[in-house]
Amino acid sequence: MFAPRAVALVGASGDEAKNTSRPQRYLLKHGYAGKIAPINPSRSEISGISCYKNLVDTPYPVDHVFIMVEDVESALEDCGRKAVPVASIFSDGFADAGDAGMARQRRLVARARELGVRLLGPNSMGMINLTGGVALSVNAILEMEAPPRGGTSLVSQSGTMLGTILSRGAARGFGFSKLVSVGNESDLGVGELVELLAADPDTRSILLFLETVRDAERLAAGARAAHAAGKPVVAYKLGRSKLGERLARSHTGALAGEDVALDAYFRDCGIARVDLLETLIEIGPLLAGRRPPDLGAVPRAPRVSVVTTTGGGAASVVDRLGTQGIETVSPDGAAPIVDLTMGKKAAAYGAVVGELLDFPGSDAVLAVVGSSAQFHPRHAVEPIIAAPRGAKPLAVFLTPQADQSLALLAQAGIAAFRTPEACADALHAYFTWKAPRGEKPGSPPAWPAGVPAEGNLTEAQALAVFAAAGVPVVESAIAKAPDYAHELSYPVALKILEAGVAHKSDVGGVVLGISSRREFDAKARQLAKGGAPLLVQRMETGLAEAIVGYREDPVVGPLVMVGAGGILAELYNDVVLRLAPVTEAEALEMVGRVKGFAVLRGYRGLPRGDLQALARAVAAMSRLALLAGRPLREAEANPVIVRGQGVVAVDALAVLKKEK
Amino acid sequence: MFAPRAVALVGASGDEAKNTSRPQRYLLKHGYAGKIAPINPSRSEISGISCYKNLVDTPYPVDHVFIMVEDVESALEDCGRKAVPVASIFSDGFADAGDAGMARQRRLVARARELGVRLLGPNSMGMINLTGGVALSVNAILEMEAPPRGGTSLVSQSGTMLGTILSRGAARGFGFSKLVSVGNESDLGVGELVELLAADPDTRSILLFLETVRDAERLAAGARAAHAAGKPVVAYKLGRSKLGERLARSHTGALAGEDVALDAYFRDCGIARVDLLETLIEIGPLLAGRRPPDLGAVPRAPRVSVVTTTGGGAASVVDRLGTQGIETVSPDGAAPIVDLTMGKKAAAYGAVVGELLDFPGSDAVLAVVGSSAQFHPRHAVEPIIAAPRGAKPLAVFLTPQADQSLALLAQAGIAAFRTPEACADALHAYFTWKAPRGEKPGSPPAWPAGVPAEGNLTEAQALAVFAAAGVPVVESAIAKAPDYAHELSYPVALKILEAGVAHKSDVGGVVLGISSRREFDAKARQLAKGGAPLLVQRMETGLAEAIVGYREDPVVGPLVMVGAGGILAELYNDVVLRLAPVTEAEALEMVGRVKGFAVLRGYRGLPRGDLQALARAVAAMSRLALLAGRPLREAEANPVIVRGQGVVAVDALAVLKKEK
Repeated sequence: MFAPRAVALVGASGDEAKNTSRPQRYLLKHGYAGKIAPINPSRSEISGISCYKNLVDTPYPVDHVFIMVEDVESALEDCGRKAVPVASIFSDGFADAGDAGMARQRRLVARARELGVRLLGPNSMGMINLTGGVALSVNAILEMEAPPRGGTSLVSQSGTMLGTILSRGAARGFGFSKLVSVGNESDLGVGELVELLAADPDTRSILLFLETVRDAERLAAGARAAHAAGKPVVAYKLGRSKLGERLARSHTGALAGEDVALDAYFRDCGIARVDLLETLIEIGPLLAGRRPPDLGAVPRAPRVSVVTTTGGGAASVVDRLGTQGIETVSPDGAAPIVDLTMGKKAAAYGAVVGELLDFPGSDAVLAVVGSSAQFHPRHAVEPIIAAPRGAKPLAVFLTPQADQSLALLAQAGIAAFRTPEACADALHAYFTWKAPRGEKPGSPPAWPAGVPAEGNLTEAQALAVFAAAGVPVVESAIAKAPDYAHELSYPVALKILEAGVAHKSDVGGVVLGISSRREFDAKARQLAKGGAPLLVQRMETGLAEAIVGYREDPVVGPLVMVGAGGILAELYNDVVLRLAPVTEAEALEMVGRVKGFAVLRGYRGLPRGDLQALARAVAAMSRLALLAGRPLREAEANPVIVRGQGVVAVDALAVLKKEK
Repeated sequence: MFAPRAVALVGASGDEAKNTSRPQRYLLKHGYAGKIAPINPSRSEISGISCYKNLVDTPYPVDHVFIMVEDVESALEDCGRKAVPVASIFSDGFADAGDAGMARQRRLVARARELGVRLLGPNSMGMINLTGGVALSVNAILEMEAPPRGGTSLVSQSGTMLGTILSRGAARGFGFSKLVSVGNESDLGVGELVELLAADPDTRSILLFLETVRDAERLAAGARAAHAAGKPVVAYKLGRSKLGERLARSHTGALAGEDVALDAYFRDCGIARVDLLETLIEIGPLLAGRRPPDLGAVPRAPRVSVVTTTGGGAASVVDRLGTQGIETVSPDGAAPIVDLTMGKKAAAYGAVVGELLDFPGSDAVLAVVGSSAQFHPRHAVEPIIAAPRGAKPLAVFLTPQADQSLALLAQAGIAAFRTPEACADALHAYFTWKAPRGEKPGSPPAWPAGVPAEGNLTEAQALAVFAAAGVPVVESAIAKAPDYAHELSYPVALKILEAGVAHKSDVGGVVLGISSRREFDAKARQLAKGGAPLLVQRMETGLAEAIVGYREDPVVGPLVMVGAGGILAELYNDVVLRLAPVTEAEALEMVGRVKGFAVLRGYRGLPRGDLQALARAVAAMSRLALLAGRPLREAEANPVIVRGQGVVAVDALAVLKKEK
C-alpha cells in the first residue's frame, strides 16, 4: 500500500496535458526509488521509461497498481493474474454515478475479493507517501518542489483536499508523512486506513477530512488502535444537514440530527473534532504525543495561561476561548493574561513561557507574538522554542503575516496558528478530546413475554419493554369492552391503544385527569369507537418533565438521548445525545448538560428533582442497545415525570425495525 | 491630520533600537514628501535631518506633531504656541493607567481644547496614510517595503492590529489607504475618524477593529455619513463578556448583555459586523461600492449560487453558509451547486460565473477554485476576472495555498478568501448588513401625574408609567389598612407594594389566585406587616407569557427587549433586542424571532396568540426612550400575558436613573 517496491500505472499517458500523465511524472519528481511500469498498449516508452502493453507483461512483481482506464474490470483481472496485492482506482463511474454505478462497484469489489486484490477507490486521487518517497497520485499539488516531510498523515474523502491541506501546511513549513484519497471507499475505507496509520512508524498524528462516515465500527476500531499507539486522531467533518429528520417517528429521531449524533460518535471514539478547516492543518503538534486531558473527577472549566506582546492580539484569542467556556488564569492571579510590552527583552518572554508551562493552575499555555514575528522571526520565536517543555500543551498565535516564524515553530514541533479563531478552536478541540470509550457497559435487558419482535407495538407493549429494561413506568391497565373495568385508583388518564400511532394527543386519542368512575365511563365511550380496548394509567404529577429516547442511527448506531420535557426539547434543541449504552455516571453527566433541568437543580428556590433517578432511567433506556439483534429502531418515553423522589415514564413509544 | 505639509517628531531618537527612532525612518522610507522636524534638545541632527531643540524653533508651520516624550503637557503647550492643529500622542500613562492617569488625561484634553489642538491618543501608535505617503507611526509593520495602496481604510483601538491587518492584507496584494490607531480616544475618536474617512476621496470602505465603543452617538453619525457617501463600514469587535450583568436589576438588564446590545447597535448604525478577524481584512471588495442588500418585503433566506472545480472545497463553504441560514440555488434547480470537473476548460468556468451573476434566482455568487489556483494562477482566476460583473456581489474561495491568485483577484477588486469560514462569514455579514436606521420613530409618551422622576418607584407607579406609554396593564388597585377594601372582582392577586423590591415572588411578597373576600382578608393580614398598603390585581389568564423590557445601556443607549416568558428567556436566552424606540413593524419582526412564541403561532394545533398586540406593547415600551431626559434606567413587564385577543402586563418594574 504505502511502500511498494514496484508500481504499475495502467493508462499512463505521455501527454502532459492529461491527468493520466501525472503519476509517472510525480513519482520521478519526488524521488521514487522503486520500479515504475507505465501500462499503455499503444506506446513503447513514456518519458524514457519502458512501457508495457499489459500489466501481466511486467517482468517483475508489482506491489501497487494505479488504474486510470475506463475498463477497470479488465485491469483488475490483470491484477489478479499478476497477484498484485493493492490497486488504487482513479477512474470514476461507480458509486459516484447512481444506482447502475453502485451495482458496478459491488461487482468489482466482489471480484477483487475473489482475486485477493485490495482496492483503494474507485474515484480516488491516489496516495502520497512523502516520508517514503512514493507520490502515487494525480493530485496537482505534486507540481510543488519538495513538500516538507513530517509526522502527520491525512485520510481524506475529498481528493482535492489532499492538495489543499498539503499546500497550506507546506506554506508554513508543516510536514506530512502519508496522504490518502479514499474515493468511494469500496474496499479500503477510512477506518482501515486509520488502523494502518496507527501501525505506521512514520505517523505521529492522523487527520481526517470527512464528508460522511461509511463504516462507523471500523473507524472506531481504527481510532482505538491509534489511541493505543499514542497517536491522536483529529476530524474535520462536513455536512451539518438534517437529512435524517424527515424519516423519524419520535422526537428522539427528529432531534438526533446527523451532526450531533456524529459529535457523540467522535467523542466516544476518542477522535478530536475541529470546527475550522485550518485547525485541521495546524492542530497536529498540539496533540502529537499527548493523551486526552484529564481535568479531574469533578468537571470544571479548562484553564489557559496567556503571555503576549500585544493586548489586542491576545484578546482576539482569549475572547474566543471565553465563548467556548475556557478560562484564562495567570500565576499572579490579578491580570488574566501576562502582557509584556514591546520594550521587554526576548529573555523575559522565554522566562514567562517557561513559568506558565510550569504553573500548576492552568491546563495549557497560549503564547501570542506581535509584529516582531514578521521582521525578526528568530528573535521573536527563539525564546518560545528554547523554553523548557512542560507536560502541558503550548499553542502559539502570531498576529502579523509571519510565514518564517510559523515555519520555525513548525520545525520545532510547536503548534503555531495563523488565525485567532483556529488557535481557540484547537485548544477547544484539545479540551473536549476524550479517550475512546471502553467496552459497552451493562448487561442486556430482558424482553417482556408476549411482546412480539416484529410488527407495530402498542403503548402498553412499549411500556412493558421499558419496564423490562429497568425504566420506571406508570401503573397501567388495559380496559376492555363492554364495561372497561379496571383496578386503578383515580385520577387516571385514558388513551387509545392502537399500535403505531405516535402522537396520540394530536389526534385526540388521550384524556387526562379523569377523576371518577362516572367520568371514566363517559370518556371511555367517546374514545373507544367500535369497542376497542383502551389504556388506563394512573395520573402522575411531579416537578418537571423530561424526554428520554433511544434510536439506532444509520451512520453511528445506537444512541440515547435525554432532554427537557414538553416543547423545550424541540423549540430549543435542549437535548444531550450519547452513543448507547451509557453507564449511570455517564447518564448523570448527560442530565447535567440539559439546560431546562435548572428548574430541578434548585433554580430560584424551586424544589430539587431526583436527577439521579432520571440518570438511572437514561442508562436503563440506553441498554436497549444490548438487546440481542437490536430489534428496536427507536424508542421514547415522553414525558418522564421527575419527582422529588424517583421518576416515572407516563408515555411510551417503541418502533421495531421490522414493522408491519 | 492625514496630509500634513510638515510634521514634527517630539522626542525623536537616532538610536535605531528605540521605537522613537521609527517615525522619522518610516516617513522617509515610505516617501513622505513634506518637511520633517525631529525635536530633541540634545541633538543637532538625526540621520542627516536637522534637529530642533523645541517645536517652537521650527522655521515653518507644522501641521501634525507626533509626541513621544513623557512630558506630554509641555509638548502640548508648544503645539499651542506654534498653532499646530493636530497632535498624535504615542506616550502612555493616561486613561490607560488608572484613576490618576484618567485625571491627567482629562486635564490634557481640557488644555488642548483651550489651545485649539486636536489630539489623537494618548497611547496611539499613530497614523499611516499609504495613498498620501505619510507613515507617521511607530508600528513596526512599516519595516515592510512598499505596502500595496488601495481604497480600504482602518480605524483601530489596538495599535498592533494596524500591523496585523496591513501585513496580512499586503501578503495577498490587498491595498490600504489610511490606518489609524486611536489609542485612548481622548479627543479624536472612532466616530469622528469614520466621519473624516467618509469624506476622504481615497477611501472606499472603512474597517473598524474595536475593543469597546466609547461614543456610540458619534460613531452612529459617522456610519450614517459613510453610508450617505456610499462607503461600507465593517466592524470586528472584541469582548463578548457579560460585565453588565452583575449590575442589572431586571431580567432585561441581565439579558441585554453587552455583545447582543452591540449587535443591535451595529445593525441600526448600518455597520456590517464580522465574526472572524480575517474576514475584516478580506471583506472590503465584497461590500465596496454596494448598498445593503434588499431581500424584499417578506423576509426570506438569502440565496447564493455556487460554481466550483472541487466538490469538497465548495462544500466546506456551503456547509458553513447552511448553518447561517443561507441557501444555495443553481439555475437548473436540480443540483445545489455547479460542479465543473477538472477537465473542463477555463472558458466554461468563466461562462458559468457570468451566468450565475445574471441568474435572477440568487442574491450573490460564490466561485470556488481548486489546485489550479496554486500552480496556474492566471489560468485559474482569469475567467473570474474576465466575467462581466453583475449587480450581485461575487466571493471567491481558493482551496490551496494560492497567494498569487489571491493577489490577482485583489488587484481586480474581487473579494477573495483564504478560508472557507471567512468566506461564509463575509457573505453572512453582507446579508445581515442593513441601511442605517433613520429618525427615531414615534412621539414621546406622557409621564403619569403623581409619579416622581426621582427615587424608587412602586409597582403601582411602574404600571402607571407603562399604561401612560401605551402598554396594556392589568386592572389594579391599592388596598390600604385597616380594611384593605378594593373594588376588583375575584379572583385577584395580592402583592407587597414596597418600592425598589424587584423579585417579589422570591421574597414571598406575592399571593396569586385569591378567590374570595374571606381568603383575601387572611392573605392581606399575612402580607401587610405593620399595616402597609398592598397592590391588588385582577388575575389574568392567557395562552402564554412574554417578557417585554427596556434598558438604557451605558454603551449603546436605550434598548428594547422581547422574549419568551417564565424561565425560558433566562435559561435559553430566548430574547430579541433592538435599539429603542422601534416601530410596530420592527417590533413584530422582533416578536417573530422569539423561538418560544412558536406556541402562539399555531404550533401543534395550539390556539394562536395576538402577536400583533404584543408587538404594539413592545413598540410602546420602546418609546420610553423618547421621554424627555430619559428618566428610566430600566423597565420590565414580566410577564405580559398573551391572549387570543390582546395582551396585558401583570407585573411591572421600573428603575429611575436617579434612585434614592
